[in-house]
Amino acid sequence: MSKKLEEFNLIEKFFQPLTNSCEAAQNLSDDVAKISLKKDEQLIISKDLMVQDSHFLMSDGGFTIASKLLRSNLSDLASAGATPLHYLLGFSKNSKISEKFISEFAAGLKSVQDEFGLSLIGGDTVSSKQLFFSITIFGVAKKSKNLARGNAKDGDLIFVSGSIGDAYLGLQALNNKVEIADKKSLKYFLDRHFFPTPRINLGQRLLTKNISKCAIDVSDGLFADLKHICESSKLSAEIYQNKIPLSVEARKILQKNSKISAFDLSSAGDDYELIFTVEKKKSKEVEALVRELKLDLTCIGELKNSANKKFEISLFDEKNKKIKIKKYGYEH
Amino acid sequence: MSKKLEEFNLIEKFFQPLTNSCEAAQNLSDDVAKISLKKDEQLIISKDLMVQDSHFLMSDGGFTIASKLLRSNLSDLASAGATPLHYLLGFSKNSKISEKFISEFAAGLKSVQDEFGLSLIGGDTVSSKQLFFSITIFGVAKKSKNLARGNAKDGDLIFVSGSIGDAYLGLQALNNKVEIADKKSLKYFLDRHFFPTPRINLGQRLLTKNISKCAIDVSDGLFADLKHICESSKLSAEIYQNKIPLSVEARKILQKNSKISAFDLSSAGDDYELIFTVEKKKSKEVEALVRELKLDLTCIGELKNSANKKFEISLFDEKNKKIKIKKYGYEH
Repeated sequence: MSKKLEEFNLIEKFFQPLTNSCEAAQNLSDDVAKISLKKDEQLIISKDLMVQDSHFLMSDGGFTIASKLLRSNLSDLASAGATPLHYLLGFSKNSKISEKFISEFAAGLKSVQDEFGLSLIGGDTVSSKQLFFSITIFGVAKKSKNLARGNAKDGDLIFVSGSIGDAYLGLQALNNKVEIADKKSLKYFLDRHFFPTPRINLGQRLLTKNISKCAIDVSDGLFADLKHICESSKLSAEIYQNKIPLSVEARKILQKNSKISAFDLSSAGDDYELIFTVEKKKSKEVEALVRELKLDLTCIGELKNSANKKFEISLFDEKNKKIKIKKYGYEH
Repeated sequence: MSKKLEEFNLIEKFFQPLTNSCEAAQNLSDDVAKISLKKDEQLIISKDLMVQDSHFLMSDGGFTIASKLLRSNLSDLASAGATPLHYLLGFSKNSKISEKFISEFAAGLKSVQDEFGLSLIGGDTVSSKQLFFSITIFGVAKKSKNLARGNAKDGDLIFVSGSIGDAYLGLQALNNKVEIADKKSLKYFLDRHFFPTPRINLGQRLLTKNISKCAIDVSDGLFADLKHICESSKLSAEIYQNKIPLSVEARKILQKNSKISAFDLSSAGDDYELIFTVEKKKSKEVEALVRELKLDLTCIGELKNSANKKFEISLFDEKNKKIKIKKYGYEH
């Protein structure tokens, strides 16, 4: 009974305030949550798991771990053009976990909730030696519209939001595999690693303005996730290395450090940018989005019918010479 | 990449067949699942986690572990009167997990899906030393109706479905804490422990026929879960020990074994029966349900306004003497 009591205290103290008293949460006092939809809406759902020492370290701290968990899960909603609504939390704990950690974890969730208009509506808590956390996230989108990785067409242009590889450089810096002397740059890369920005606004506009029918978020790596589009849409991609958007900060690191290449940045993961495809005649609408969202949206190539049905990516350097892709993505 | 490839093979081989090609699953090729509802429906959602060595042993086998996971999660839907629809699976694996285990795990899910009309629509797979599994389950119910633990009223009768304590006796037998010589009895208790029957049909009828407004499933123990009703409804309960329904098999064990009491059976968990409350004038309708569902529904007492606002359970023996409840429920 004492464990159960502890569990109730945990929920009351830290998690109940995260419901924002929304009806769907049933005050977290029932075993179920309840969601109603408007007539023309569909529910968009994604579930993510994060495991200690694989996806996070306890030394990252509760605020950071919770933020990344929720932010990366929101990125799945962004790739479907959905508006965030609610989430369920699966929370594991053990005797090594402090109340401070849980309090910071809840604060991390709160900060992301406030930024994206989310509320907690339920979940489960358990004990485990190796900690793990799980989010099931819910968003809504118009029933009649569909943004999915299998919808690209022959001749579509391939766009990428923001910049690629910054999160990877953050991780490399943490692991002492690259030295980043400039403190402002270091903070930039670490923020990109720990606090990715799910491109919710972008996804919503791509969907509602009919600019794109096909998107994916970059979690495994630019090449790996573009390959998912190729395979699902049964097309091949031709992209140009020098068009892949890198941040000013990343370019500086590449100049100074011969061990890291632009290629490495595109075969790493955790960028949580969107790759999306656009009919050529709609490319002007993408330019308008760049101005509206104040977000870089860069065309890196286009999709083509595949003669050999291999649905591959051809990567070209600045001299139009084909570069072999030895590694597509990130392994956890 | 190899891990990721393995993950895709795992999904294609074992999990894709579980989608029954339903639209919501998007063929498991997208990061999101999509659910649409009819105008008068609401989505009922529950999330459960199970951790190795706490909620299951690997020696239980994949079929049994998956069955119990999905069956106990379905029980949450039953308590809300919902009709099962879909689920998301969180699946962890490590190098010790065999393909045979995963195949049996998938077969376990399949058997429950077929029995209750469910399909898999998405999820996530990760690696972890200590294994864990997570289900987010979805059902639908009429928007206008509501079965919840906080809806009981003063004077309502308290009913329990089926029998209480069988799962506990199964667990005690497994742990060699009670000897059950009769093989048929042993199988009965083990089946009740490993393969609980979520009372979906009962929950649906309580809701749609307006027989009850308040229900909970017995996962923590009869006393513990009835106490949840008391606290949420702000009422006290008066119940009678000798009315608590026990199976013929359980009564035999109690007769033979002085170490186990009827009290123990009601303070254990994992029964997955429903406790529900009914206005006195509707008790005839419960009798009709017993005949229709061929399921025992037993009145064990009633709910009363609480003078001291303590919202407690008073348990009486056959001589109307109050028995102190020293332990309410089960600790994992």
